[in-house]
Amino acid sequence: MSNRPQTPLLDTVNTPAELRQLKPAQLRQLADELRVEMIDAVGSTGGHLGSGLGVVELTAAIHYVFNTPEDRLIWDVGHQAYPHKILTGRRDRIRTLRQGGGLSGFTKRSESEYDPFGAAHSSTSISAGLGFAIANKLSGNPGRAIAVIGDGAMSAGMAYEAMNNAEQAGNRLIVILNDNDMSIAPPVGGLSAYLARMVSSSEYLGLRSLASKVARKFSRRVHHGLEKAEEYARGMATGGTLFEELGFYYVGPIDGHNLDHLIPVLENVRDSEQGPVLVHVVTQKGKGYEPAENAADKYHGVPKFNVVTGEKAKSADGPPAYQNVFGETLAKLAETDETIVAITAAMPSGTGVDKFAKAHPTRSFDVGIAEQHAVTFAAGLAAQGMRPFAAIYSTFLQRAYDQVVHDVAIQNLPVRFAIDRAGLVGADGATHAGSFDVTYLASLPNFVVMAAADEAELVHMTYTAALHDDGPIAFRYPRGNGVGVALPEVPQRLEIGKGRVVRGDVDGGKVAILSLGPRLAETLKAADQLEAKGLPATVADMRFVKPLDEELIRKLIATHEVVVTVEEAAIGGLGAHVLTMASDAGLLDDGLKIRTLRLPDVFIDHDVPEKQYDEAGLNAPQIVDTVLSALRHNSAGVEEARA
Amino acid sequence: MSNRPQTPLLDTVNTPAELRQLKPAQLRQLADELRVEMIDAVGSTGGHLGSGLGVVELTAAIHYVFNTPEDRLIWDVGHQAYPHKILTGRRDRIRTLRQGGGLSGFTKRSESEYDPFGAAHSSTSISAGLGFAIANKLSGNPGRAIAVIGDGAMSAGMAYEAMNNAEQAGNRLIVILNDNDMSIAPPVGGLSAYLARMVSSSEYLGLRSLASKVARKFSRRVHHGLEKAEEYARGMATGGTLFEELGFYYVGPIDGHNLDHLIPVLENVRDSEQGPVLVHVVTQKGKGYEPAENAADKYHGVPKFNVVTGEKAKSADGPPAYQNVFGETLAKLAETDETIVAITAAMPSGTGVDKFAKAHPTRSFDVGIAEQHAVTFAAGLAAQGMRPFAAIYSTFLQRAYDQVVHDVAIQNLPVRFAIDRAGLVGADGATHAGSFDVTYLASLPNFVVMAAADEAELVHMTYTAALHDDGPIAFRYPRGNGVGVALPEVPQRLEIGKGRVVRGDVDGGKVAILSLGPRLAETLKAADQLEAKGLPATVADMRFVKPLDEELIRKLIATHEVVVTVEEAAIGGLGAHVLTMASDAGLLDDGLKIRTLRLPDVFIDHDVPEKQYDEAGLNAPQIVDTVLSALRHNSAGVEEARA
Repeated sequence: MSNRPQTPLLDTVNTPAELRQLKPAQLRQLADELRVEMIDAVGSTGGHLGSGLGVVELTAAIHYVFNTPEDRLIWDVGHQAYPHKILTGRRDRIRTLRQGGGLSGFTKRSESEYDPFGAAHSSTSISAGLGFAIANKLSGNPGRAIAVIGDGAMSAGMAYEAMNNAEQAGNRLIVILNDNDMSIAPPVGGLSAYLARMVSSSEYLGLRSLASKVARKFSRRVHHGLEKAEEYARGMATGGTLFEELGFYYVGPIDGHNLDHLIPVLENVRDSEQGPVLVHVVTQKGKGYEPAENAADKYHGVPKFNVVTGEKAKSADGPPAYQNVFGETLAKLAETDETIVAITAAMPSGTGVDKFAKAHPTRSFDVGIAEQHAVTFAAGLAAQGMRPFAAIYSTFLQRAYDQVVHDVAIQNLPVRFAIDRAGLVGADGATHAGSFDVTYLASLPNFVVMAAADEAELVHMTYTAALHDDGPIAFRYPRGNGVGVALPEVPQRLEIGKGRVVRGDVDGGKVAILSLGPRLAETLKAADQLEAKGLPATVADMRFVKPLDEELIRKLIATHEVVVTVEEAAIGGLGAHVLTMASDAGLLDDGLKIRTLRLPDVFIDHDVPEKQYDEAGLNAPQIVDTVLSALRHNSAGVEEARA
Repeated sequence: MSNRPQTPLLDTVNTPAELRQLKPAQLRQLADELRVEMIDAVGSTGGHLGSGLGVVELTAAIHYVFNTPEDRLIWDVGHQAYPHKILTGRRDRIRTLRQGGGLSGFTKRSESEYDPFGAAHSSTSISAGLGFAIANKLSGNPGRAIAVIGDGAMSAGMAYEAMNNAEQAGNRLIVILNDNDMSIAPPVGGLSAYLARMVSSSEYLGLRSLASKVARKFSRRVHHGLEKAEEYARGMATGGTLFEELGFYYVGPIDGHNLDHLIPVLENVRDSEQGPVLVHVVTQKGKGYEPAENAADKYHGVPKFNVVTGEKAKSADGPPAYQNVFGETLAKLAETDETIVAITAAMPSGTGVDKFAKAHPTRSFDVGIAEQHAVTFAAGLAAQGMRPFAAIYSTFLQRAYDQVVHDVAIQNLPVRFAIDRAGLVGADGATHAGSFDVTYLASLPNFVVMAAADEAELVHMTYTAALHDDGPIAFRYPRGNGVGVALPEVPQRLEIGKGRVVRGDVDGGKVAILSLGPRLAETLKAADQLEAKGLPATVADMRFVKPLDEELIRKLIATHEVVVTVEEAAIGGLGAHVLTMASDAGLLDDGLKIRTLRLPDVFIDHDVPEKQYDEAGLNAPQIVDTVLSALRHNSAGVEEARA
């Protein structure tokens, strides 16, 4: 504790109710203390820093003005909510952020009554807020819903759908547009340009210098009701017509770091009879911490760091990250194939598409947080003869599922899906886990679905996908670094639907383990342990869940007593496909000790991946136990029941 | 042929190239003939009428002005493309629309080179068009992409995502907003109000009377390049700022039935150096056919009808449609439960939510074509204590999959999903089939997933869902009418995760058939046929795929020689869950003749459902064959291989 920052005022504030006892003049100090406390905490845990620093004043102001938790405050994405957590009774656990058993890095309903709606994926807050507002309206509850959403999140169609429906909420819904002109990567598209025009206009720049005057002016006007509020919204400054046309009362832009502006404006919005109101607040990501302010990514997400110098903890040198293996491989392939294009939805560096973009800028497309558009855009490119790679995290591809089905699979268009962050992902927790993609893709006709067991396999699969013009093809790979195998000089084109035996003998053994994806490493460990117990184990890397390598599976079933499938995917993946094929073919008619290991039927909270996989039952000891249990599980019990 | 309308000019036009040989003055006659031909064709087949009638002139004008198929014309949804089909070489098959083996009711790549991108779900056209445009840009191909999208489809977030990215296409992308102020139901939301304001403004009304003058004015101006075009777009008439703010050059509104306006404007847009351009065309759904013009739904989708009188073929009286059973049941339940609310995404009558809305208007929400918002809005309502029912077709729920996972399942919020159009759907074909919902929902932790075997079961499940406050619950049911069972006076609350034996003896028999959903009828037929062959058959209606009735399954496995699952869902559904549970529990270790019947790994084209299910192998004869084949499939073959 001795090195912790001095926070005498913050120390007296444990809840928003206590915050509301402060005088307005004290809020500046409170915000400053909140900021240093947050920097210190994230310095010790790592996590999202820049976004939280940008909303320190906004967080204090909202809780000061509104009656949380009865007024429902919904942070879009939720990774900017660390200051909010500190102010809402979770300060004592703030240094457990993103650690196993500790606070989530996002908002979470089970954590606090001040988190009425959890988040992590972007652009959900207006829809959820509208749900709260309408529920209150129907039940006569006086509470408001306040959605705080970034300009990047506004590029998602979902936010637009919600805005298009917001009018019915009236003054029960307040949307605060937190405009820092930067989501994770630089922002994309027409909306961003529009916001930039507003903020850079002479009217807004003039306003900043006349700030307190304007705040007072607004303060007078809004009390006069509809016409005045409308006049204000339309007449003030620089526009907001886009929001007005969707039915909002637009207020802004307002300097989001100036509490003397924020408090009176929010008070007036709170007391307005009119709504829904959209308050356009301009903030600076990383505000108040010089290393963050000066960094290109504003310390969006950081490892532990030295608070004084800003120096980040270095991760040990190791194998390359999967995303970079993908991005560099694709960039290389594109040198000789002019039809290759890459698409990312606001994740250029997370997906490795930045590596591709550097080499082939005209063939790289960052569409913003817009996965639906990304996939159908890719389908259009494919229909016109290009070879598009849509590089999207497993969890975010969920947002484009209909486009995957309707625009890609039904039309059998050769869109290549590079699915990053497949399986469990560690500190980001359940919301970011890539658990369902194998199931929801392998059920689709026309699709080829692969999973890379290591980074060399990823090279091969990227190449295989590039050459696959017959229809859609997807390949998944995990978050983090490879396992350390050598990368191939020359990528190999894999035969579609063929697995490989990586250990043991396809023609005989006690146990056959069919692995899909990077659980292969644990599977091989398990095989060693089984072998040590006198149980010869054959291990196959199936590579493909669709089409299945039926020939290989038949052989392994025929020549082994126990068959186990292993995958870091939910029910409906490799295991289900093998069972379905085998039962269809009558291969189970005469008995087979077959077990399918997969992600369990629970959402697994944030922790280090090793522990998550332990909880999931997908590490070597559990694979061994499954085999042993299957072997012990002799006919007796079951036969009795079936007699 | 004798009763067919006289179409002397249309008879000379078999392709757009021939159309382009006509003089502008001939287009009026062509459009008139095209209209009567279309009315006559749909009169004989049924199908979508109103939308096609609204775009007769627009269709002729686009093909006249643009160089299709090199210029890529993409009809959003595609149900308005019947005139397009007539003009693009498919007139000889136009009276096979939506029949088995005949033309699709939507655009389809495999049908014609004039259909560069198939559709059926809404709001995909701008994304796809952008794909074509960028592919052309990268490869130096001169073609344009023209996306024609309705105002209803504009309410989907996907269209907004695409518009937000459109700027990079430049003049290679043209979006035609077909504004008939009516999608299927009356339109919803802020955008619709915005368009209505524009169209009703005095400027637009004035323009209509000054039409040819304006067309000439635009014609002069646009040739002068950027500044003039911008001046035009900004200065003309009534606005379009919303589109301009997203980076479009806005042109409009234009009377979409006046060829003297359409042709010169489209020519100028075609020849413009600037882009992307959004052309706002105002049309009237059902235009030119009095019975359609006068109908509330403008003959959106119709059965066969008498062309002279407009009288529609009556369907035989029969059991009520599933959607109405749901809507009426929910309306009834809501009489005594004030927390029940219903949500539809632009399908009030298709989902039966109109019945609910009539009784409880303040608790019914039509959010427009905005499934993503619908689901998270429902989650917000649930989090604030309401009991929301999101009534969405299976195929459209795909568009909200991430919201289902991230906002509902992970948070374990009690949103009720009433999933209509589950299974194969007949004339709408593969794009509208509800094939994947069981798989993509049953893989999610916290979810309860049910399927109704008949309309009485649907009543019970609606009631069961209403009372299920523990987490999300979904129930699926098919398109069309019930099977004719009596509706219960009092709904029954089903025990979660419990199936029912509907025929035979749980304690013994040769064959156990586990059915999920309305295949139950065919399953019972199959059981009769098996019984007739001396094979006693037990039939269970599982009701739940998640949680599974493990106790019942264990019993049936223990006491029957063959076990078959039957469901109208893709791989990963009931069959996969039963196999997974059984193998986990070691129930397959000593042999079980188990088979899983499900939708096959192909997209099944439009036809009558009976034939579709025949193709899918899910009718009684195929169930019988599966059982017989399993019984014949004795140990010999398989044992040999495993020796």
